[in-house]
Amino acid sequence: MFDCRGVAAVTEIAVSPLAPAAFPAMPAVKGLRLATAAAGIRYEGRDDVMLAELPPGTTVAGAFTRSLCTAAPVDWCKHALAAGAGTGRAVIVNSGNANAFTGAAGYRVAEHTAASVAAVLGAEAHEVLVASTGVIGEDLPVERIDAALPALVAGLCDADQESWKRAAAAIGTTDTFPKAAAAPVAGTNAHVAGIAKGSGMIAPDMATMLAFVFTDLALDSATAQEFLAGSVHRSFNRITVDSDTSTSDTVILAATGTSGHDADTHTDAFREALDAVTLDLAHQIVRDGEGATKFVAVTVTGAADDHAAQTIARAVADSPLVKTALAASDANWGRIVAAVGKAGQRADRDRLAIWIGDEQCAANGVPHPGYSEERATEHLQGDNIELQVDVGVGGGQATIWTCDLTHGYIDINAGYRT
Amino acid sequence: MFDCRGVAAVTEIAVSPLAPAAFPAMPAVKGLRLATAAAGIRYEGRDDVMLAELPPGTTVAGAFTRSLCTAAPVDWCKHALAAGAGTGRAVIVNSGNANAFTGAAGYRVAEHTAASVAAVLGAEAHEVLVASTGVIGEDLPVERIDAALPALVAGLCDADQESWKRAAAAIGTTDTFPKAAAAPVAGTNAHVAGIAKGSGMIAPDMATMLAFVFTDLALDSATAQEFLAGSVHRSFNRITVDSDTSTSDTVILAATGTSGHDADTHTDAFREALDAVTLDLAHQIVRDGEGATKFVAVTVTGAADDHAAQTIARAVADSPLVKTALAASDANWGRIVAAVGKAGQRADRDRLAIWIGDEQCAANGVPHPGYSEERATEHLQGDNIELQVDVGVGGGQATIWTCDLTHGYIDINAGYRT
Repeated sequence: MFDCRGVAAVTEIAVSPLAPAAFPAMPAVKGLRLATAAAGIRYEGRDDVMLAELPPGTTVAGAFTRSLCTAAPVDWCKHALAAGAGTGRAVIVNSGNANAFTGAAGYRVAEHTAASVAAVLGAEAHEVLVASTGVIGEDLPVERIDAALPALVAGLCDADQESWKRAAAAIGTTDTFPKAAAAPVAGTNAHVAGIAKGSGMIAPDMATMLAFVFTDLALDSATAQEFLAGSVHRSFNRITVDSDTSTSDTVILAATGTSGHDADTHTDAFREALDAVTLDLAHQIVRDGEGATKFVAVTVTGAADDHAAQTIARAVADSPLVKTALAASDANWGRIVAAVGKAGQRADRDRLAIWIGDEQCAANGVPHPGYSEERATEHLQGDNIELQVDVGVGGGQATIWTCDLTHGYIDINAGYRT
Repeated sequence: MFDCRGVAAVTEIAVSPLAPAAFPAMPAVKGLRLATAAAGIRYEGRDDVMLAELPPGTTVAGAFTRSLCTAAPVDWCKHALAAGAGTGRAVIVNSGNANAFTGAAGYRVAEHTAASVAAVLGAEAHEVLVASTGVIGEDLPVERIDAALPALVAGLCDADQESWKRAAAAIGTTDTFPKAAAAPVAGTNAHVAGIAKGSGMIAPDMATMLAFVFTDLALDSATAQEFLAGSVHRSFNRITVDSDTSTSDTVILAATGTSGHDADTHTDAFREALDAVTLDLAHQIVRDGEGATKFVAVTVTGAADDHAAQTIARAVADSPLVKTALAASDANWGRIVAAVGKAGQRADRDRLAIWIGDEQCAANGVPHPGYSEERATEHLQGDNIELQVDVGVGGGQATIWTCDLTHGYIDINAGYRT
């Protein structure tokens, strides 16, 4: 099946109603070459391996799952980033098998993959980052990646609209649309451009979150790591679909430096472009949330500090009762009160205020006198929902993005493996 | 509609498939008198107020929600327990309106209710405990409780099979069956007997968890409080349906002392009977979990300590991905690995072991060589599921009880208010 975004849909599940209207216009990132191939790891009739080749001198940085049960490729990347002091020559990604819960043998598979890619590109193994996504607890048939390597390398071409599309599609699993975003770095001819996959947040099997972000600005590796950590904190760490965390979540930033500009002299512009790309990709993951029919921003203000605000916003965003009410366009703000109450952060019950869109439901811990359930319901009937809670104790604030919880989520997760 | 349990079903939702076969045989608790009435607070054609009269000399203890946004009756009970030094003469409970998020006026309603009951029973207001469950953010029409009081008091009769049934039904909201449990205190003629309501765990509107446990053993109030806290910790605090916490959760223990026996000389027997009753009631709440089709025990062993084990077990029990897999009888133990990984407690990935029923899926961080998915699936096709995880770092262990996540949950929560 081909849709308006011009790529093969990953499964027969319909494209999310919250998907962007079109795959975005993607820039070249000088020096970055992309290729995809069909290695047949699990899927039939689609590309399932993506190779990104990076020019010599590229710096790389990574951010990884906080799960204590990390997958082998995550362990490999952490080792490689340390061993290579943040320099990188390639990123190889496969879908269909996460190489997770595969013990010492799984680590050897990731290491072997890196070494194989390094050998054909004339690089060191620790200059090759590896990411895998798909079923867990099954051995990754690494010989299929080996067999696909010659075709992958032969297919490498400069990143352009078509190769970005193919790359974004190849790394997908239960994703219903390929995810990409780009932004120019103001005052330079450089860009930040990236692709991502993820639809549940974050399932261990097929819905791990992966993102690969590239720039042709020059960055030293310590700065790259610092910028990436900050940007991930403001984007991928602010979304939730179902509160689950994958064993494999990985975000890689690679800076080729081929634009002739460097980040040191364009710090703010680079941060802005990087944040625009990571936030756009993060929002796209929510928009592809399993069964999602509404994109929801939960903003908490008046908390003790920003961290407390984030905890409260997450409690609201993760509440199954809030999420099912949103699915039904039910202005049941009592469920928001309950979620705030259970978050375990300071909140003044008697100063609590709640808004659904622009409609104020509650003020000072009681229903707002002018509240119109009709107007609140009208807002909830759209597919772009804003909830706000002021907890009345301080100046902390945060926004968490999520989606609603629907029959579609149950259909996908109670059915897809059997 | 009347079912085999002989009471009017609360809503038109079908009785949970996990409901006990029959309402249990309930004992008299000497001195305890029960009555119910239809006050018309929200529901038509059913009793929605329950009064339990306690003889002079009764000690009372309470355990309450840890929500920071407590409902007014919770605040009243805390005040009354302190003011009355743990003595009580009555408990009055209404369903249909939770008197939550109602500000200072809501507190005055709870106080007024207590005073009204106290006046007709010849007691002090602080000897009357109040609990309310139902919609939140709406004023409780207290005049309807006042109007029903004469009928309630006239209807008071010794606790017997019929009055227990009526009491258990009157306090229900979205419950699909009335919940009661009893146990004799070995070596005495005394009993522990209680009723509960709750079906989501724990929704702010209609699915708050309330439990009222009575004994004719004599207990001093400090001991009653201590026993209740321990028993709640081992029962109601070990269950989860959807991870949400109510603003109104309340458990009351009342000891009339009318059996002539006291708890000091029967400590172990009393603790055993109390635990049997609270655990039975807690399990019944899970069995009435919204949309539940399977009753699930998640046991974690090998954790750093019991608290860590409980946190990990809760992460597994609350994972929407685990719960949807259980709904589908899908032996997708990778989702259990992911839930363990996100729990934030020490676990040794490379020593992790997982069982579904008696079938070992994983050992030492890799799939178990003898694992039969067929046998695991067979266990999951039953409605009494046991999951076990050993995290390989210590001697801590805990069990959390939960249910699966199904289309029924979405139906109930995305629809019932509209």
